[in-house]
Amino acid sequence: MPGTNIDYSTIFNKTLPPPSNKWQGHPKYNFIGGHSDPKLVPMDSFIESAANVFTGDPRNIAMYNFEGGPQGILSLRNFLVGKLAAERGIDVSAEDILITSGSGQAIELINEVLLETGDTVIVESFTFSGALSYLRQRGVNFIGVDTDDHGIRMDHLKGILEGLKLEGIRPKYIYTIPTLQNPTGSVMSMERRYQLLNLSEEYDVPIFEDECYADLIFEGEYEKAIRALDDSNRVLHIGSFSKSLGPGLRLGYVVASWDVMSRLLSRKTDAGTGVIDQMIVGDYFSKHYDEHIHDMRSALKRKCDVLSAALREHFGPLVDFEEPRGGMYLWVKLPPETDSRAYVQNALDEGIAYNPGPDWSANPDAAANYIRLCFALPSESEIREGIEKLAKVFKL
Amino acid sequence: MPGTNIDYSTIFNKTLPPPSNKWQGHPKYNFIGGHSDPKLVPMDSFIESAANVFTGDPRNIAMYNFEGGPQGILSLRNFLVGKLAAERGIDVSAEDILITSGSGQAIELINEVLLETGDTVIVESFTFSGALSYLRQRGVNFIGVDTDDHGIRMDHLKGILEGLKLEGIRPKYIYTIPTLQNPTGSVMSMERRYQLLNLSEEYDVPIFEDECYADLIFEGEYEKAIRALDDSNRVLHIGSFSKSLGPGLRLGYVVASWDVMSRLLSRKTDAGTGVIDQMIVGDYFSKHYDEHIHDMRSALKRKCDVLSAALREHFGPLVDFEEPRGGMYLWVKLPPETDSRAYVQNALDEGIAYNPGPDWSANPDAAANYIRLCFALPSESEIREGIEKLAKVFKL
Repeated sequence: MPGTNIDYSTIFNKTLPPPSNKWQGHPKYNFIGGHSDPKLVPMDSFIESAANVFTGDPRNIAMYNFEGGPQGILSLRNFLVGKLAAERGIDVSAEDILITSGSGQAIELINEVLLETGDTVIVESFTFSGALSYLRQRGVNFIGVDTDDHGIRMDHLKGILEGLKLEGIRPKYIYTIPTLQNPTGSVMSMERRYQLLNLSEEYDVPIFEDECYADLIFEGEYEKAIRALDDSNRVLHIGSFSKSLGPGLRLGYVVASWDVMSRLLSRKTDAGTGVIDQMIVGDYFSKHYDEHIHDMRSALKRKCDVLSAALREHFGPLVDFEEPRGGMYLWVKLPPETDSRAYVQNALDEGIAYNPGPDWSANPDAAANYIRLCFALPSESEIREGIEKLAKVFKL
Repeated sequence: MPGTNIDYSTIFNKTLPPPSNKWQGHPKYNFIGGHSDPKLVPMDSFIESAANVFTGDPRNIAMYNFEGGPQGILSLRNFLVGKLAAERGIDVSAEDILITSGSGQAIELINEVLLETGDTVIVESFTFSGALSYLRQRGVNFIGVDTDDHGIRMDHLKGILEGLKLEGIRPKYIYTIPTLQNPTGSVMSMERRYQLLNLSEEYDVPIFEDECYADLIFEGEYEKAIRALDDSNRVLHIGSFSKSLGPGLRLGYVVASWDVMSRLLSRKTDAGTGVIDQMIVGDYFSKHYDEHIHDMRSALKRKCDVLSAALREHFGPLVDFEEPRGGMYLWVKLPPETDSRAYVQNALDEGIAYNPGPDWSANPDAAANYIRLCFALPSESEIREGIEKLAKVFKL
């Protein structure tokens, strides 16, 4: 029936972000995002796990929240109970865990439950771009706290908390990625973890601990989660399977006590997280976590070394970066006058994608001369070629 | 580190819904929600499809939005292009389709893009409880339009639109489930579909067409989608795989042109819908849709007949309902003085769960003497036993 088109621009919500651009495909030398290593996706084992879980109870698929209810499939939550205890020192039961559709949903559920427009939160000065986007979209103020190689600088944090208190502002949380920070790769020292808990108590502000990357430490033993040190319910803890397996499956989790959990559940209005992902990962990780994560850490360590060497070779003394103790990123500092945003399109023209620093910074301009490079996805030869080409883009 | 617990109640967002109750497990005689038939979940075929898709490109799992980009896996979108053309008369390309994490996300993305607090929308007087919840949570006003066995009463709709126009209010959309309406099971006549398009044009208000149940018609030929009759981009169309396969997998979709699609994408901040679900369903339905949906329709028809007979036997003339042309619900009218909410707990004590009418009504009190019964999940003997017991709960 022909008629007059509706002009949707006259009825859109007036606070929408700009429209998306059409998707252009993936670049050849892909250093952006948090993609994982395709060689490490256990495709054969996933076939085995699928065969196991699809001989189970079909009600898991035929029903909303069949086994385990709205907090998620029990096999996966039970795996997490064991992993959190063994790897992160966190002692919880399956009842304290909510499986989410990616850790992004975990962040947004916590935001939904705690935040209102005009609220204030504290974030690390360089931090996850998605967390900043969510806060901007909600009209929440964020204050960046300085960090160094050992995590948040507690003197600066105390100053911020004291200043806010004088203004009568109680921040809703302190968001931290203490273990393999995104983007810097730093690990907060144990001493600072205790200091952070003390400040949290002194100013009555919860800690929002994001441990999406903690599985990817290259070492055997490492710092416990802040949640493991907390006996007074002041740490909301989240994690992810995107980094240990891959972000194409959408699985994350929140660890929280019932006072908060009951609120997260009332705002999880997505009718549950997909059970096929949960069942397959629950089956696979219950049997193969240790060997899988060993292989993942080894592969990432090699790629990290290759990227570091390529940067030294092709960028020389013009770049400065710390070699991280794990994870999938290098946070690379360019000469002070460089604006990393200015080279994005030129790099894409050469098939290279990197993340300009400002997106990962509470104060964008303060990270103008940084870039974030993810080394998990490209092969070792793609890393070498890509960095050689990238140096030419930056005309070094 | 022992310390003083944080009292989260002092920092919760003040507009939160009440906290969730702890999960109590599923009742034996389960007539609630939109659960599907466990016998119809193709577990063996899912094992085959999993074996197929997990021998494909591992980058689908290792990367965000690898194949197909942020709108979803191409095999699944291409299946939908064919299905929408063959079954619903809708002529679109894969570029017009966005795969969502369940159709609930489809609804919420459209809401996010179009609605602000204080806006007004029009809904069918009896309608999907989730859609009403989403609107309430957003502080959006909804006006219920009367329906009969042929869908929305156009005289009433015109009256509402005219009244709003006089008040200077342009409603943001008219939400309709035209084909196997939830909860009534009615199918809007073709004549009314055209009339609805005319009114949409006259008052410049888009139509939000929810076809979550349209796959489940018992007949061979049936009314085309309203989107199929629309040449002027005034229909936003959504659908689901929860009803044709099962809600444990979280897959729905939106059909929209780029002006709206680009906005939906900018608000789809969940880093993509899970690819394992998409790949398995894309593989399975590309090969087996016709036979699958034939079996599903036959099974639901049988269960519908069993439920209808059980109601007649045990409730007799005290209940009134239309036998629907498909779907998974009976919308059952009890005597006028009955308050269906009053019997929910008594029924649960007997292991029976049903949905009280008020949850499915723009004006809750107007549906006090209705209940909604989903017949897809329970076996035929559970339907018979459950209804016999339910009649005793209602003391008939």
